[in-house]
Amino acid sequence: MKLTQAFIPTLREVPADAVIASHRLMFRSGMLRKLSNGLFTYLPLGLRSFKKIEQIVREEMDAIGSLEIKPTVIVPADLWKESGRWDAYGDALMRLKNRTGAEFVVSPTAEEAFTALVRDELSSYRQLPISLYQINTKYRDEVRPRYGVMRGREFIMKDAYSFHVDDACLDETYKKMGAAYRRIFKRCALTVIPVQADSGAMGGSGSEEIMVESEIGDNTLLLCKSCSYAANVEKASCKLDYAPRFAIQIALGAAASVPPMETIDTPNVKTIEELCGFLKTDSKNFIKTLIYKAKNVELDMGDAPGIAKIEKRKSATGASSESTQAYSEVFVAVLIRGDLDINETKLKAFLKAADVELAADEDVMRITNAPVGFAGPAGLEHIPIIADPSVTSITDGICGALKKDLHIKHVAWARDFNAWKITDLRTVKAGDACPLCGGELYEKKGNELGHIFKLGNKYTVSMNVNYLDENGKSCNPIMGCYGLGLDRTLASIIEEHHDEDGIIWPMSIAPYHVTIIPIKYENEVKKASDALAAELEKAGVEYLLDDRDERPGVKFKDADLTGIPLRVVIGEKTLGAEQAQVELKQRRDKENRLVDLDKAGSEIIAIIKAELDKLNKQD
Amino acid sequence: MKLTQAFIPTLREVPADAVIASHRLMFRSGMLRKLSNGLFTYLPLGLRSFKKIEQIVREEMDAIGSLEIKPTVIVPADLWKESGRWDAYGDALMRLKNRTGAEFVVSPTAEEAFTALVRDELSSYRQLPISLYQINTKYRDEVRPRYGVMRGREFIMKDAYSFHVDDACLDETYKKMGAAYRRIFKRCALTVIPVQADSGAMGGSGSEEIMVESEIGDNTLLLCKSCSYAANVEKASCKLDYAPRFAIQIALGAAASVPPMETIDTPNVKTIEELCGFLKTDSKNFIKTLIYKAKNVELDMGDAPGIAKIEKRKSATGASSESTQAYSEVFVAVLIRGDLDINETKLKAFLKAADVELAADEDVMRITNAPVGFAGPAGLEHIPIIADPSVTSITDGICGALKKDLHIKHVAWARDFNAWKITDLRTVKAGDACPLCGGELYEKKGNELGHIFKLGNKYTVSMNVNYLDENGKSCNPIMGCYGLGLDRTLASIIEEHHDEDGIIWPMSIAPYHVTIIPIKYENEVKKASDALAAELEKAGVEYLLDDRDERPGVKFKDADLTGIPLRVVIGEKTLGAEQAQVELKQRRDKENRLVDLDKAGSEIIAIIKAELDKLNKQD
Repeated sequence: MKLTQAFIPTLREVPADAVIASHRLMFRSGMLRKLSNGLFTYLPLGLRSFKKIEQIVREEMDAIGSLEIKPTVIVPADLWKESGRWDAYGDALMRLKNRTGAEFVVSPTAEEAFTALVRDELSSYRQLPISLYQINTKYRDEVRPRYGVMRGREFIMKDAYSFHVDDACLDETYKKMGAAYRRIFKRCALTVIPVQADSGAMGGSGSEEIMVESEIGDNTLLLCKSCSYAANVEKASCKLDYAPRFAIQIALGAAASVPPMETIDTPNVKTIEELCGFLKTDSKNFIKTLIYKAKNVELDMGDAPGIAKIEKRKSATGASSESTQAYSEVFVAVLIRGDLDINETKLKAFLKAADVELAADEDVMRITNAPVGFAGPAGLEHIPIIADPSVTSITDGICGALKKDLHIKHVAWARDFNAWKITDLRTVKAGDACPLCGGELYEKKGNELGHIFKLGNKYTVSMNVNYLDENGKSCNPIMGCYGLGLDRTLASIIEEHHDEDGIIWPMSIAPYHVTIIPIKYENEVKKASDALAAELEKAGVEYLLDDRDERPGVKFKDADLTGIPLRVVIGEKTLGAEQAQVELKQRRDKENRLVDLDKAGSEIIAIIKAELDKLNKQD
Repeated sequence: MKLTQAFIPTLREVPADAVIASHRLMFRSGMLRKLSNGLFTYLPLGLRSFKKIEQIVREEMDAIGSLEIKPTVIVPADLWKESGRWDAYGDALMRLKNRTGAEFVVSPTAEEAFTALVRDELSSYRQLPISLYQINTKYRDEVRPRYGVMRGREFIMKDAYSFHVDDACLDETYKKMGAAYRRIFKRCALTVIPVQADSGAMGGSGSEEIMVESEIGDNTLLLCKSCSYAANVEKASCKLDYAPRFAIQIALGAAASVPPMETIDTPNVKTIEELCGFLKTDSKNFIKTLIYKAKNVELDMGDAPGIAKIEKRKSATGASSESTQAYSEVFVAVLIRGDLDINETKLKAFLKAADVELAADEDVMRITNAPVGFAGPAGLEHIPIIADPSVTSITDGICGALKKDLHIKHVAWARDFNAWKITDLRTVKAGDACPLCGGELYEKKGNELGHIFKLGNKYTVSMNVNYLDENGKSCNPIMGCYGLGLDRTLASIIEEHHDEDGIIWPMSIAPYHVTIIPIKYENEVKKASDALAAELEKAGVEYLLDDRDERPGVKFKDADLTGIPLRVVIGEKTLGAEQAQVELKQRRDKENRLVDLDKAGSEIIAIIKAELDKLNKQD
């Protein structure tokens, strides 16, 4: 394509809110424009690269036998009420009403639409497994959209859903998806970090996120210096630096040597740090006690203290299926060793809650009879206590006294307090020990590009999907679900492949393979440029011919900015040499070299093929 | 692809609400499923055909130099307020609010998003013309979605927008678009009828719709038996069957011979038909007078009677630009000869109104001092009178007397009443005379597949888009806009290409080119089927191999239903003949023929190429 017939409005200026390289470069290179906060228009150059990612994703999905379908973007709320997510999803769900008052969602993800489809078509185990995907518009009502398409409100996601008779079958598809994701990102020239992940509000068991390292990443990753362990902090566990004591008898035995509890005056001392200084002791001896409010809790809490009084919320559809029932609001007391932090994602997952947050001051006052800072498990009643195992290792502990300006010392697990449940709630940090090999863990910031997980039967039970097995028994299939953000993948490629002057596209994603720059588009130079363009076009090479009446410097700057991998410069001087030549340069190289004009086409074609082969080669 | 690995759930049953062939067949062939009223999921087979249309549209747009971009589907309401369509578009516009209360629309069309983009990039006449398009999700909150994807709520539209310095330049792009549309539909094997069209609430001048004939079409088309004239009834004009008398002097001269007006008792006579019987005269002598309520009228009515009192509505953005001002509600009296009908689309276009409707009974009472049925222009004050020219031909007329049960006779144009404006408001009917050649017009029902029109500067003025011309003067570009419904195109292809047994795909849109049916997929038959499949795959032929363990009859029925253009049947009998053979049959033919096994592949490839060439050939 000739540049004068294209629409590539490059900019010298950087938009004020563009703080990361991909955001800056997508605007400056004329790939993207802002329509509104978190909403963007892809211009022709951006769309070309975008579609190459789309095509790679499609090819790899097709290759593992997933079948493409296309539901609508706007989906009836009824389906989301069936699944329970109409209530559980939170404010990021874009809800709307049509002229008749019927409710809909703008899909942020499509478990419901796919599950409803399969429900209607499925009758026998012989039809399983089924693996379906779409590449379609999604919307999330982000509070703070930023970083361009890295975190926009509307975006394109590839989301696949698979349905299976058993875990072995799900495992197989899950593994194929994991392998397909690795191939996709390799073809996109992206360095990715697959990590163990929490499966969030989705429920389910196995879960892996494919991350790219990023300064502005909204995920913290824990990686082991000695082995291949890698996990999202939301999921990460570590080798314990203490001996947990779970059996009450053991705990009581240990408590026998501890002096009786003793209340101590701690005027104006609220934080654990202040308390350590005041009592001249280590934070490891403190029993940190936090009151949390959890919403839409699906964990069965029938035997928990203070819970009997809380009415079970009916599911939105009025269905009485156990799985869609939930406590709309529950308060819990959460304990952990004073030097450690609660991982709210783990807490949320344990409670099967839609959301957890620290209780408001007035709720803490009501529940603990004291302002924030004086909670403790000893004497705390009518509320379920959930403890991290680290608490069980504290033999002679300190905690709040449930009264203002008072703490208690010599508090002993099992003797002075007990927990309703003990479960891992610890936030793992850099420096903790790898759960696999004991090596030192370190942290990275990452952005999630893909997420694959085993959903289990959450949706097939709540939405009543059944098939008859070999024995004619009605069963719920189990599901896997597999997302991949295309916009974010595009931005991440630019993050990994750029320099001060602009983008450096990998050949597979480049909007054009080569840019032909005539020094002045006239006479012999024009003739040679057109001939080369024609030769390349015939070979299926995507070229851009800069036929503008601009100084060479301007053309070079734009070529660097837009990042086309190959650049051919055609000028009178080299054309007029004894052997007519042109300058050939790869965007990633500093130096150019002279190539005979009559061999330029075949050389360019060969370079493109080699680059594509290298990226597409399967390991 | 092997059928056992596909997801093509064919049905023997027809959905109850599927009254047209395409709706029935898309469901039965496993192309489509319903997600909700007016919302559908394309299954793999349907999506494959859909994408072929998408690709044809893309190729033809690219070929005329239109550049593809992709704005978001959800667009900020602010842009729609700037253009005035937030108010003017009506209830089909799906409006929504996000968590912060910001308003958005789910795009039903994208003049605003494209205009806003160009506004930010445009500075000089040198950048024009610009032609941009998208193929993207659209949403219209249809009151009565029906006929499957023929009239769904969410659909995919190709919409292009072009920007120009002058009419000549717009004309050129408009013509190229018209030609591209004709090529697109030819490649889709569709017989289309291009008709002159009204440009609706969009404003603008030239406008052409590309229609397909359809029993359930929501457009009435008027076509000439003698020449190529074709128009949407909304726009159609005809050769007048009377001599209009516009000059007041002539009218007054004619009136001189008419007796003075005389009031006549017409108890319980309300309709013109009743009146004709009562007065023993022809309806052509009646001055039919209707009171209309018009909303958001942009026509300047400053000099119209009764209008001065009506306050001009402010535009939503508070901008004072003349073009975005409108009367929020206006009543007008509309006159036409008694045997003719008012064309509300023409009235709406004349008034530049968002909507027109007959006034409610109480409004008629207030304005005419009489119940519905006794309105007339003589003595009617404080309301603008708009007359069809047919009224001026009535020399000695009859009309309502503005009193219950009274009419007036001997009413004369110019002597007894006058109109504020005279304009064509006639609904043309079958039997009227062609405006071009005087031939007889006839009617057809049609569905609109595409619409191209010259928008003029409506959006560039209201949204303040400017460029500097050659003399440095600031100007608003003029626009064209060009829509094409992809889902409806797909359904229309099926409407035109099917029989009792199923779809008969044109090769260009077929989900697969050929279906290979082994009578029993085992031994030699399996070997031959696999070998043929491999040969075809290598040649880029899209095949479906029916490897199911089903009776041949079931396989044949499904092959007919899904409409794959070529069918190869491989069985032991013909394979075992002296010269191994297979049965080859085109879906559109009744008979099959035997082809040597070793020539089957090349023959199939040749047929596919010939069919595609025929469809793609440019006239």
